[in-house]
Amino acid sequence: MSTGVNSLMSAIADIGTDPRRGGYTRPVYSTAELTLREWFVSEAQARGLEVEEDRNGILWAWWDTPDDDGVTLTRTGALVTGSHVDSVPGGGAFDGPLGVASALAAVDLLKAREAAGELRRRRALAVTVFPEEEGSRFGVACLGSRLLTGAISAQKALSLKDADGLTFGEVARARGLEVDRIGADTEALARIGDFVELHVEQGRGLNTDAFTDAHGSQPAVAVGSSILGHGRWRISVYGQGNHAGTTLMSDRADPMIAAAEIILAVRSAAVAHEGARATVGRMEPIPGGTNVIASRVDLWLDVRHPDDAVTAQVLEEIHRSMTQIAAVQGCRAHMVEESYSRTVHFTPELTRAVEAAVRRSTPGAPTLDTGAGHDAGVLAAHVPSSMIFVRNPSGISHSPEEYVESADADAGVVALADVLADLL
Amino acid sequence: MSTGVNSLMSAIADIGTDPRRGGYTRPVYSTAELTLREWFVSEAQARGLEVEEDRNGILWAWWDTPDDDGVTLTRTGALVTGSHVDSVPGGGAFDGPLGVASALAAVDLLKAREAAGELRRRRALAVTVFPEEEGSRFGVACLGSRLLTGAISAQKALSLKDADGLTFGEVARARGLEVDRIGADTEALARIGDFVELHVEQGRGLNTDAFTDAHGSQPAVAVGSSILGHGRWRISVYGQGNHAGTTLMSDRADPMIAAAEIILAVRSAAVAHEGARATVGRMEPIPGGTNVIASRVDLWLDVRHPDDAVTAQVLEEIHRSMTQIAAVQGCRAHMVEESYSRTVHFTPELTRAVEAAVRRSTPGAPTLDTGAGHDAGVLAAHVPSSMIFVRNPSGISHSPEEYVESADADAGVVALADVLADLL
Repeated sequence: MSTGVNSLMSAIADIGTDPRRGGYTRPVYSTAELTLREWFVSEAQARGLEVEEDRNGILWAWWDTPDDDGVTLTRTGALVTGSHVDSVPGGGAFDGPLGVASALAAVDLLKAREAAGELRRRRALAVTVFPEEEGSRFGVACLGSRLLTGAISAQKALSLKDADGLTFGEVARARGLEVDRIGADTEALARIGDFVELHVEQGRGLNTDAFTDAHGSQPAVAVGSSILGHGRWRISVYGQGNHAGTTLMSDRADPMIAAAEIILAVRSAAVAHEGARATVGRMEPIPGGTNVIASRVDLWLDVRHPDDAVTAQVLEEIHRSMTQIAAVQGCRAHMVEESYSRTVHFTPELTRAVEAAVRRSTPGAPTLDTGAGHDAGVLAAHVPSSMIFVRNPSGISHSPEEYVESADADAGVVALADVLADLL
Repeated sequence: MSTGVNSLMSAIADIGTDPRRGGYTRPVYSTAELTLREWFVSEAQARGLEVEEDRNGILWAWWDTPDDDGVTLTRTGALVTGSHVDSVPGGGAFDGPLGVASALAAVDLLKAREAAGELRRRRALAVTVFPEEEGSRFGVACLGSRLLTGAISAQKALSLKDADGLTFGEVARARGLEVDRIGADTEALARIGDFVELHVEQGRGLNTDAFTDAHGSQPAVAVGSSILGHGRWRISVYGQGNHAGTTLMSDRADPMIAAAEIILAVRSAAVAHEGARATVGRMEPIPGGTNVIASRVDLWLDVRHPDDAVTAQVLEEIHRSMTQIAAVQGCRAHMVEESYSRTVHFTPELTRAVEAAVRRSTPGAPTLDTGAGHDAGVLAAHVPSSMIFVRNPSGISHSPEEYVESADADAGVVALADVLADLL
């Protein structure tokens, strides 16, 4: 069935496109992300939802009008669904916005069911938009949900810097947030009774032979069971900046050489541990001139494994290699943790309820773990949380090639609406 | 003697400082570089020089007032001295501005000598400021002198892009240059009879035991004899962008791994050839997110050797390694030449005249070759050119640690004034 999610997605297809990298660059509180937030507010209001922004910049759109019996639905212990609208640099169209657009389309379905007498609500529903889920601007993923839950202190968050040297505090203040009220918000957190996040699948989870039927079809959706532990570390390698033409090879302490060897050591450490993933996707030589031997190179490390002990072991191996490599090159290096999230297993009771609802419309929907981090993973430490993944036939994400077929997006909305209807 | 050069340098010490990298970031036509150009115009006018900007954005400050006999000095075959005011990102205070400030201070000395009847001019003198000597904005070093001499075509130059994606043509137009008049300018080139550039020494050329006397002193200045052949190439490595958490290590075609191996291959190729220098000081993973496997990595290569045949050989080895490395990683790579300058030997006659003049005030001034490129090297293919280097006790350049002692700067001005007086 056509749920309206694809036209919602089409309406934002031109916002934040990146002509240089391809795809979308929508960092939190950029013009592009702010435009998407305005789009969300306007779409939510058009559905009669009441929108508010909390102290941490999280948007909440409430469907809490009295039910048919005239009982007013309180905003405590509500059912909450949502995702984010920020992106990685050069990211795909679906990572984030699909969950938000699907939630709005699911509200339409639920309203129609209520009007037809097929739905009786017992609690309020909110659709949320979390800021800085990707951490692509301030370096800490799920910054909004981490602040809400107190997983990061306000003090630490406010001092995070973007690539232009602006702190999160400065940017938040410029956006009109009250900086001294940013941080753990137990009242807002108490509003969430259960949290369900719909998200594009980001790997080959559904795109495998195991789930392909005799007709070559794969299920449109899956249920999330757990999120791999993952973290980010920044490595800084310090050497001796100098002129690329006048400095003999033997006189150099070039941090780029050490950084290159560290990148290879990162891969070796990951390959040595089954199931581990370790990536250097961001790197910045300073000053960064063609005719200049760098004085410093910063590189960012992303490490994930289902077993937190193995993640720690991979990290320890990388740290040891880093120190040795830097010393041999006459450089020094150090590593700082920017964020770390332990492996999250979603509440089995909620997972079973979500599986039952999802399989009414998609009978073969499997239950999968994921290597990607999500706000649902941060919230899961405090409230029952669950996820629905929509098939990504490319198996590619964080790239312009990320893709969702229209029919699968519709199937995702139906699955989400069924889940919400059961829990409402 | 105090020549005024140090107060000229102090006056610009606050312009274009870079709080993040340290030192100065003064890319061509940035606010900082334009402010330095205004400073130059005002200092030149204060000395009675007539300033004009040519079609390629080169500033010329003319001292061509009639001489004592009332003979008008023509602007053809003049004596020209000057340097540049742009910098690499996070560069030092002296690379470029020292040559410009020394030229202005030398004019003061020459005017005083003329007033004292110690100097009789036979031709006009011009002080020049060349744009984009470093190539740190548009990728081609000595862009101003290359355009003037036709070493780069206007068409190629106009399409060069900066990191923001702006073309040189767009930036030049915004600055008020007539874009269809940019390019080889034989008339302007004919104005130069001889060219002398004073520059901070950028390596350990003067800072060696060989030139240190019994009191631990080293000569303040040296004469340049040749410039090493050097070039810049851009290597682009293409892989498969993807999610850092969901993509197994075995499923990756990660261009960062290939780029790291290429950086090490670059060093190996340089080390294998005595006297060769090869550097990767600039690198950009695209999209550049921490939780994103890059889809492409651009790296910039700087290669130099006194023997052009060896430079070609080093480059061929790097190209071969690059292709093999990329293939093994499931990536592809290609290399584009951004600029190349053959080894330049300055005219022996002019070098001898400069040596004689310089050694009047600095008897032990040696004659050195240099690994750094300069506008004098580009001009040398067309007009007799020479260089004077001022001692850099750190031996470090293209870095905030680049340094010149005040007394050496004064000695540089005296040496330059003596050279100009002899040639005028």
